[in-house]
Amino acid sequence: MDYQSILDTIESEIEKRPVSGVVASYIPELAKVDPTKFGMNLFCINSGHYSFGASDQRFSIQSISKVFSLTMAMNLLGDELFERVDVEPSGDPFNSLVQLEYEQGIPRNPFINAGALIVADVLVSKLKNPKEEFLNFVKKITDSPSINVNYTVYESERKNSYRNASLLNLMKSFGNVYNDIDTILDFYTFQCSVEMSCKELSQAFMIYANGGKKLADQTKILSPERVKRVNAIMQTCGFYDEAGEFSFRVGLPGKSGVGGGITSVHPGQYTVSVWSPPLNPKGNSELGMYALERLTTLTGFSIF
Amino acid sequence: MDYQSILDTIESEIEKRPVSGVVASYIPELAKVDPTKFGMNLFCINSGHYSFGASDQRFSIQSISKVFSLTMAMNLLGDELFERVDVEPSGDPFNSLVQLEYEQGIPRNPFINAGALIVADVLVSKLKNPKEEFLNFVKKITDSPSINVNYTVYESERKNSYRNASLLNLMKSFGNVYNDIDTILDFYTFQCSVEMSCKELSQAFMIYANGGKKLADQTKILSPERVKRVNAIMQTCGFYDEAGEFSFRVGLPGKSGVGGGITSVHPGQYTVSVWSPPLNPKGNSELGMYALERLTTLTGFSIF
Amino acid sequence: MDYQSILDTIESEIEKRPVSGVVASYIPELAKVDPTKFGMNLFCINSGHYSFGASDQRFSIQSISKVFSLTMAMNLLGDELFERVDVEPSGDPFNSLVQLEYEQGIPRNPFINAGALIVADVLVSKLKNPKEEFLNFVKKITDSPSINVNYTVYESERKNSYRNASLLNLMKSFGNVYNDIDTILDFYTFQCSVEMSCKELSQAFMIYANGGKKLADQTKILSPERVKRVNAIMQTCGFYDEAGEFSFRVGLPGKSGVGGGITSVHPGQYTVSVWSPPLNPKGNSELGMYALERLTTLTGFSIF
Amino acid sequence: MDYQSILDTIESEIEKRPVSGVVASYIPELAKVDPTKFGMNLFCINSGHYSFGASDQRFSIQSISKVFSLTMAMNLLGDELFERVDVEPSGDPFNSLVQLEYEQGIPRNPFINAGALIVADVLVSKLKNPKEEFLNFVKKITDSPSINVNYTVYESERKNSYRNASLLNLMKSFGNVYNDIDTILDFYTFQCSVEMSCKELSQAFMIYANGGKKLADQTKILSPERVKRVNAIMQTCGFYDEAGEFSFRVGLPGKSGVGGGITSVHPGQYTVSVWSPPLNPKGNSELGMYALERLTTLTGFSIF
Repeated sequence: MDYQSILDTIESEIEKRPVSGVVASYIPELAKVDPTKFGMNLFCINSGHYSFGASDQRFSIQSISKVFSLTMAMNLLGDELFERVDVEPSGDPFNSLVQLEYEQGIPRNPFINAGALIVADVLVSKLKNPKEEFLNFVKKITDSPSINVNYTVYESERKNSYRNASLLNLMKSFGNVYNDIDTILDFYTFQCSVEMSCKELSQAFMIYANGGKKLADQTKILSPERVKRVNAIMQTCGFYDEAGEFSFRVGLPGKSGVGGGITSVHPGQYTVSVWSPPLNPKGNSELGMYALERLTTLTGFSIF
Repeated sequence: MDYQSILDTIESEIEKRPVSGVVASYIPELAKVDPTKFGMNLFCINSGHYSFGASDQRFSIQSISKVFSLTMAMNLLGDELFERVDVEPSGDPFNSLVQLEYEQGIPRNPFINAGALIVADVLVSKLKNPKEEFLNFVKKITDSPSINVNYTVYESERKNSYRNASLLNLMKSFGNVYNDIDTILDFYTFQCSVEMSCKELSQAFMIYANGGKKLADQTKILSPERVKRVNAIMQTCGFYDEAGEFSFRVGLPGKSGVGGGITSVHPGQYTVSVWSPPLNPKGNSELGMYALERLTTLTGFSIF
Repeated sequence: MDYQSILDTIESEIEKRPVSGVVASYIPELAKVDPTKFGMNLFCINSGHYSFGASDQRFSIQSISKVFSLTMAMNLLGDELFERVDVEPSGDPFNSLVQLEYEQGIPRNPFINAGALIVADVLVSKLKNPKEEFLNFVKKITDSPSINVNYTVYESERKNSYRNASLLNLMKSFGNVYNDIDTILDFYTFQCSVEMSCKELSQAFMIYANGGKKLADQTKILSPERVKRVNAIMQTCGFYDEAGEFSFRVGLPGKSGVGGGITSVHPGQYTVSVWSPPLNPKGNSELGMYALERLTTLTGFSIF
Repeated sequence: MDYQSILDTIESEIEKRPVSGVVASYIPELAKVDPTKFGMNLFCINSGHYSFGASDQRFSIQSISKVFSLTMAMNLLGDELFERVDVEPSGDPFNSLVQLEYEQGIPRNPFINAGALIVADVLVSKLKNPKEEFLNFVKKITDSPSINVNYTVYESERKNSYRNASLLNLMKSFGNVYNDIDTILDFYTFQCSVEMSCKELSQAFMIYANGGKKLADQTKILSPERVKRVNAIMQTCGFYDEAGEFSFRVGLPGKSGVGGGITSVHPGQYTVSVWSPPLNPKGNSELGMYALERLTTLTGFSIF
């Protein structure tokens, strides 16, 4: 498979493609990003990296961090985790609070905010220095020791977290939150404010394409069974209420963030990351989704 | 891969496993089925059929028929179909009417009843003899000319279709239904009342594992791109509000029916069908889900 | 109290008042009404009728008919009726189907469509000639033998009743509907198509202001306890999701119809009817609500 | 009207009546109350007080306090208040968060918790010493300077206010909350922890039966137009999702609290208060509702 030629095709298509999406504005600091940035990196198990554009420039990974925190929590808590958070698609964006109320404080899945906050609560309970250990985990699976948090983004988000505080208080009223709410919010905002490049995201996600092991040295991070589960949750819940559309068009598990990043996994084959800040109305990178759809169309294969 | 030995293991586990589910009772005729029946058939692209139990006994395929009708409608209408029915998971069982009301008569996906009724409306519009042509399509992809409808089940369901009539009237009030409601209900009940065995279902679904072509003679039924889409919809929407759980535990696209059948697809590898009438609270075959989870665990591979 | 002078004031205010509402259009025949029509009639227990405008012109009473059918059903079935329909406000317009689904086919109150259809089902069960007997009841309490149905409106509505058919089928699936759906729809459309003038509505509603008896001859129609209940339901449920606003601004029980009519009751004092076709976004007569608010403000008394 | 004889009848009926309700337990301190306590006081404009049982014993007024805070806020802010909180019934108990999310942080009415918290936010903004001034207002309209907060209850509730914190954070995310969340919660818990007797509540509520003026000295507290509005809101929203039932059975505006108190108003006639701690499943005093229904049945008149 001539991946570089396929990426070249995608690059030329992206350059000509009009964009109607807009950059996320609810976090003031994120709104300042250059909307014309585009980067893409494909990391193949057999043949290494293919890239174009700003694939080495770091951006705010935001909700993509939920995959890393879920991975850590699964290793720390095992199946018990899924007594506190379910694995079903949530249906629609308005449902988070609705469903929490009907379903007694158990979030639908670990990738909606409510679920990611429960995962954060677990990490705050189980780790001595949650922030430091989270950052170390990301550095380790990426082999990139300079990865860090953008503290300006972190401060900006921290001041705008009333909705997340509402979710945590509601879940606490149902007995599903164990730590102090401010401590959880603080950790959660921290994990979302990590910055990585497309290339680094592809490297980090390689554990989900490679049976739970880092590709470089085959260090085991996660059991194959848990890899299957993380990928399955990405497939059904990775794109809010556009998970079906992504699955339908792209056919790969993946996770998006409001910073404009998306990382996808083709188990046994490759990982792929794109970055383009303008978001479609469902909150996913508009050009990012297009680029990934073209990838599985041009290569002619997906997991389906 | 020694599939027969794996199926033997599953058979011995199933025999000892207690069952808490109950047979579907809202259709009186379906309630008469023997709850202890169990059949399983795996159909491998490279090595043919593996079976145990009542794998040759026909049962009511019910909602599994929605995959066949979707396939026909995609071929007849192309992408236009997805302007009338979306491809997102629906969230929960109560949502069908709720979401239809909020979302102006556009069903969430083709596998909830509302969506399958829209697909039926399309077939009624596009086919001269919808019932006959539907049955012929199923016979053709299965290579089994004796497949037929159970008319006792058909009559029994036809008398209990108030909920489906409610869905159709609601969608008609939004302008998303074109044919007479009784005609659509009649066709829809017909398709649900088809009877097939596990082996026949595995044969029929082989087109979704084999890039859209029948395995025996490589007759093309569906384009590879549409195969990807059908499989993607099965993955995210094939099990009502348990789609996430099935994906999480089994890791394959599939579709269940209230008759107790489930058929799953491992693209490029095999199809597999199970039949066990007692349903779990979400309406999916309890032992069927267990058998498929054991299959991907014992083989050590799924699409993830 | 100089009611005529108060009505004169209201008339002069109404003439100058701009209108932003629009005439109901979902029933084609109703859309043809002259939007500038306005009529008002106040019928005082102690001092008779006061009027202005088109107070003698008949119009389509639509949902105001639900008060009459509820009255008949309460007399026929007694408290048993309230096992099949509740007496709580429904919250919002979208809730009808939502609540029916969550609450097992029991409508919130007799004035949302779902509830009025249950009342219609009761009348169809209990009356030999439901249409004739309904019309006779209305003629009797109004002392106006020429009241009749507008058959053009009736035909027009009958062809656009998919939403009501959806409600009936849903409630039938829960076992709360006993008669044939078309028969109920037919009767229900008939009752809604009755035409009356403001003056006739004020006369008919006098039984709710006069302890259940006609004013002219003190014929007993309804027990005082049931009068209290009908008035209470009008107060809390008479204006869809604007019941609170009407109660807040006007302070009287009442019932509106999409034909632009509203009739209100001040128990022990008077009844009052207004007619103005343009509806506000909640489906209630815009000028009608204003006129009634002015009435209780200028008289300085309401039930509160 | 021989009110004392009617109250005697009610007392004898209450003594024999079995109770299935239970005392509110979510606030530990409230759960300690003696469930057999019963008090009733009727305060007639023309003829003074009638009582039986523990009508002089103070209890936790809880949500009844929302009527007092609404009154203060209406005087401070005028109609502007109703841009921040609506006056419609909320439909059902689960709706609070659901509706807030759909309706952009504007609560349905001032008597659900979300609405009362907005009213509290207004008082915190407008008053120099909100707690002191609130208590002074209640003392003044009651003519009872010893009324006070139960600080044990206050502390107990303050520790269990996660649900209210969730509501406030959600409304703050929509821009409808101006003060610090802890400050609002603190004031709101304070107002709920006030203790009053049935006799004191009847005296306080006399302003709503007497056109806005205290009966003793005709001091004007509220304009007649605002009295109409407060009574209208009590009528449609005073009993959570049982407002329709209360209106239907009792036919008077009123407000209940989880401490087991209910106070009702017959404008121009009387106020009446009952206290009995066991609550029905909707959260209203079981015997209290019964006693008030008997009162309007035995007197033969209500506002309807």
